[in-house]
Amino acid sequence: MSDWTKTLEGLRSRAWEGLSAGAGDAGHPLHTCALATTGPGGAAEARMVVLRRTVRDKALLEIHTDRASRKVADLSARPLATLLFWWPDMALQIRARVRVRIVTGAEIDPVWEALSASARRNYGGRPPPSTPMAGSGDYRETAERDRFALLRGHVETLDLLHLGTAHRRAVYDRRDGFTGGWLAP
Amino acid sequence: MSDWTKTLEGLRSRAWEGLSAGAGDAGHPLHTCALATTGPGGAAEARMVVLRRTVRDKALLEIHTDRASRKVADLSARPLATLLFWWPDMALQIRARVRVRIVTGAEIDPVWEALSASARRNYGGRPPPSTPMAGSGDYRETAERDRFALLRGHVETLDLLHLGTAHRRAVYDRRDGFTGGWLAP
Repeated sequence: MSDWTKTLEGLRSRAWEGLSAGAGDAGHPLHTCALATTGPGGAAEARMVVLRRTVRDKALLEIHTDRASRKVADLSARPLATLLFWWPDMALQIRARVRVRIVTGAEIDPVWEALSASARRNYGGRPPPSTPMAGSGDYRETAERDRFALLRGHVETLDLLHLGTAHRRAVYDRRDGFTGGWLAP
Repeated sequence: MSDWTKTLEGLRSRAWEGLSAGAGDAGHPLHTCALATTGPGGAAEARMVVLRRTVRDKALLEIHTDRASRKVADLSARPLATLLFWWPDMALQIRARVRVRIVTGAEIDPVWEALSASARRNYGGRPPPSTPMAGSGDYRETAERDRFALLRGHVETLDLLHLGTAHRRAVYDRRDGFTGGWLAP
């Protein structure tokens, strides 16, 4: 198999290269991922989200959301979440355990300003997400600055699994500078 | 958009048709999904799994796993999990909140018997999953009947989101026979 799967550094670099590419390319398989959170009562929740930005040297992964969504409520109560990616071309699963900070206010004015008019309409809407309605169309989209939030995931551990002829799995921890170590797959 | 997106019954039927097809076809986008669980300390965990079987009239979704995997430990402690699917062709997100029963013992002898020799090697292995190792290849695969388990997910709620020109979202609950109702997306 490819050389990049054989070393801790090779696996980690490939993962970050893919995440960076995915954040900027709507056609890339790493453009979307599952965001798992812990809901009320301790039940696990998950939904698809879009990866918007990566900052490799700080190990950050960012997504955008509606402040009125349930994931924001989940993360307000329990900020430890997982972002799960699958990269078919590389047969690589990327699991990022993140501590999420919900960023609102003036700090994200530049992010909001950079959004297109149609993108802004994803943040807002009446009634808010998850409200029961009599008909499927009984809501209207609105662009509301106050409903826009950025979820900044500080990667605590990165768990990479390559499914090759021999499977390889490694985990990297922020506390030791993401040096990494092998795990049984 | 297509008619199936316009009614509660149409959406639900399309989802179950897809899940049934996905369980039997390794090339189908619904063959794999994210399994979200709640880990020790309340942190949300997720990993990719393979959908092995569906039973629509009982609203069951089944996957196979190694009993020594962390997801089994998570589910033993907190059985409320989510299976998250994305069906690109239909622009349909399927979120199944499930209560998971970990099935072992003689009840799954027929399932084990039906597995190929190579499939059986996914259940076992020394050291067990997530054990730190000095080198990436310091493990060996073994087929161990006692390490094989079936995770039977009893769907409690099914949350369907169709991303069309107008988004449509519906949720179906076991307690009312999965009649369903619309939600704001």
